[in-house]
Amino acid sequence: MLFYKVRFVGTERWFVEELKVTFQPSGKTVMVPRGMSILDAAAKVGILIETPCGGQGRCGRCMVRVDQGGVSHRENIHLTQQQIEEGWVLSCVARAQGDLVVSVPAEAQREKGWAEEAPVPVSCDWPLYPGVRQLSLQIPAPSLADNATDLERLNRVFKEKWGIDATILDLSQLRELAKTLREGDWQLTATIEVRDHGNAARIIDISPGTRRRRLLGVAVDIGTTNVVVDLVDMRSGRFLDRVSARNRQALRGEDVISRIIYSERAQGMEELHQLVIGTINELLNELVEKHRIDNADVCEMVVAGNTTMTHLFLGLPPQYIRQEPYVPTANQFPVITARELGLAINPNAPVYCLPSIAAYVGGDISAGVLSSCLYQTDELTLFLDVGTNGELVLGNADWMATCACSAGPAFEGGGVRHGMRAIEGAIEDVRINSRT
Amino acid sequence: MLFYKVRFVGTERWFVEELKVTFQPSGKTVMVPRGMSILDAAAKVGILIETPCGGQGRCGRCMVRVDQGGVSHRENIHLTQQQIEEGWVLSCVARAQGDLVVSVPAEAQREKGWAEEAPVPVSCDWPLYPGVRQLSLQIPAPSLADNATDLERLNRVFKEKWGIDATILDLSQLRELAKTLREGDWQLTATIEVRDHGNAARIIDISPGTRRRRLLGVAVDIGTTNVVVDLVDMRSGRFLDRVSARNRQALRGEDVISRIIYSERAQGMEELHQLVIGTINELLNELVEKHRIDNADVCEMVVAGNTTMTHLFLGLPPQYIRQEPYVPTANQFPVITARELGLAINPNAPVYCLPSIAAYVGGDISAGVLSSCLYQTDELTLFLDVGTNGELVLGNADWMATCACSAGPAFEGGGVRHGMRAIEGAIEDVRINSRT
Repeated sequence: MLFYKVRFVGTERWFVEELKVTFQPSGKTVMVPRGMSILDAAAKVGILIETPCGGQGRCGRCMVRVDQGGVSHRENIHLTQQQIEEGWVLSCVARAQGDLVVSVPAEAQREKGWAEEAPVPVSCDWPLYPGVRQLSLQIPAPSLADNATDLERLNRVFKEKWGIDATILDLSQLRELAKTLREGDWQLTATIEVRDHGNAARIIDISPGTRRRRLLGVAVDIGTTNVVVDLVDMRSGRFLDRVSARNRQALRGEDVISRIIYSERAQGMEELHQLVIGTINELLNELVEKHRIDNADVCEMVVAGNTTMTHLFLGLPPQYIRQEPYVPTANQFPVITARELGLAINPNAPVYCLPSIAAYVGGDISAGVLSSCLYQTDELTLFLDVGTNGELVLGNADWMATCACSAGPAFEGGGVRHGMRAIEGAIEDVRINSRT
Repeated sequence: MLFYKVRFVGTERWFVEELKVTFQPSGKTVMVPRGMSILDAAAKVGILIETPCGGQGRCGRCMVRVDQGGVSHRENIHLTQQQIEEGWVLSCVARAQGDLVVSVPAEAQREKGWAEEAPVPVSCDWPLYPGVRQLSLQIPAPSLADNATDLERLNRVFKEKWGIDATILDLSQLRELAKTLREGDWQLTATIEVRDHGNAARIIDISPGTRRRRLLGVAVDIGTTNVVVDLVDMRSGRFLDRVSARNRQALRGEDVISRIIYSERAQGMEELHQLVIGTINELLNELVEKHRIDNADVCEMVVAGNTTMTHLFLGLPPQYIRQEPYVPTANQFPVITARELGLAINPNAPVYCLPSIAAYVGGDISAGVLSSCLYQTDELTLFLDVGTNGELVLGNADWMATCACSAGPAFEGGGVRHGMRAIEGAIEDVRINSRT
């Protein structure tokens, strides 16, 4: 054990007690405060333990063996008397009370980056109508004869050149306007949002000079298990790249219901919100680095996810989605800015969430119906999305019906006591050798 | 001198050195870091020293005498050789280099709360048309037969009862919606903004239950010297109270030009912005305490000030107002929310700034023209505002002309080497006794 001590003139206090936890077979060690769960301690050194129930002590899948040291552990139905005597505990509810040596069996350990390479999108015949535009502006410099304000000068040019009545700038942009205009010697590059604001243009970005900047957008698919981000050139509509990663929320439950239950804990909601924002930002930064672009060049984001994922993305409480009569806060979400969620793109970029249909049919399904053109076809068509949750839409241009159920556990081993998911270490093939 | 020491295991560092400054004749003492100006040290214990130039070492009005201890001091034209030998320094540029004893002469000291009781407003014959309304809503509870989302249920009631097509909630309100509806058992009190948003209502506040809450507004006059806040009942239009205080920015220059110069320093702009927000919040809290109201009950704010004051209030850089050709960032300001400025009222309350006319004719003059009805009268009328800056408007319903000049120094002793402002300690009356 290690103690830190801070001394102030006249007072003396001991205040942080840390315990050492060693994980086998990797030999990794970590210092943690007394009372931290073994699950959380393991996560600190990158050892991700399977927790289909989200660390609620309900599924019994996160068993590890404590070889040395003491833990506190609440009673549960998953451990036999023999297992308890051998030192087995559920890592989600076992809390360190002394220095520990813990063995993590291979089957309890989750592979870190097992998100498969997602296939690149099918080409679509949609007409290109980007929601953002970039304009170069030459603004007449002021003089004593014409000393209208900076904002009036900007509005005048928008009016004369594009017939736009007014610009909408937020306070942070207005604060930079004087500097930006003068730095660029009254030449300006403006990125504007084309969404309907009466006859006004909302400014996403202004930068000095007329150097043409990249104009990019991202489409984000928030799956319960995986998150995928596509990078798109907003001038040509060209698909540039796709990256994906496991949704970090998976640490707190593998299916939607476990996540909702976790969200009802104190701070649980905020934690899940930050975990998905963190996952997306990591992917955005991966794209930024790989393509040598600037985060601020990404000026639009479209997000699709099931109703719970969209709620958690926006920080809306999903708990009533789980309880009869299954009422989400919203199915149609306001357009917000990236700043409001701390997303690593242009802070003024609009973020559109595709509308949900119901508590268990989300924006991912709206996106599917839209991009498959199911809603335009005459033929009776079945649209299927089998993920951790499974949804289907049956219909055509005249009518559509939809329903959903939990599909993941069937493929992912939820509730399975013996056996495991199809990941490294699982039995893939059995051959019977008739001779032996 | 006092040293604080913090000890970490294995390392040891000294890191804060503080000096003791004692002010005479009050005897007040304060601990300050080495290098702080005497002006700032004095302000920390509430001793406000006159600084007409805003602490730039230009006016020579902030002289104090150092009786003990060492200071660093740059050269200047204001001190004679004899004064230097006697220990006189300019408090704005003299920086503590050791423990000090400093004498502050009465004429250098500014009275703290000399803002006069502002007169209550004249009664106006304006029709009452408040920008905010409070509504009680009874929302049908959801069932399996009708499990529309919380937001849809809210919108439905607005549509059915008031013909309003949609509500505009920001993300923080949407996050609270589910809880608020259920806490109030589907009864809700909503405060909405009546400003034109197409046929949508922007929600300022929702609270559970239908307890009628107070509905208040404030009008703020930001003068270069004094700030006045009026509290108004938004249901009846009744004037409730008026409070005023000295604009804390006065510490950084007494006239508009000194403030602009100060704003051009590193962090100067942000400091002036925070000083005026701080002044207003102090007044708001005074009203809240006195009338036992909740800050969140104040749902609208209207602000008038000269162009520079409005820029500093919004955090817009005023520097080009001072330089030819005198171009402000804006004369017409966007409607913002109290949250964006950290104002101590309902965070979603709209904040309206009255439009300026030019760099030196501000929203205070627009307010005057509006409330005096000058713009409606047939008779040729002169409107005068004599403050630290003086403005006049001449005209009637057909035409108006306006101009401005610096008026304050004539009344406030700016640039006066001998003599002082008409405050406590000044000679008020001289009588010649013919017998002596």
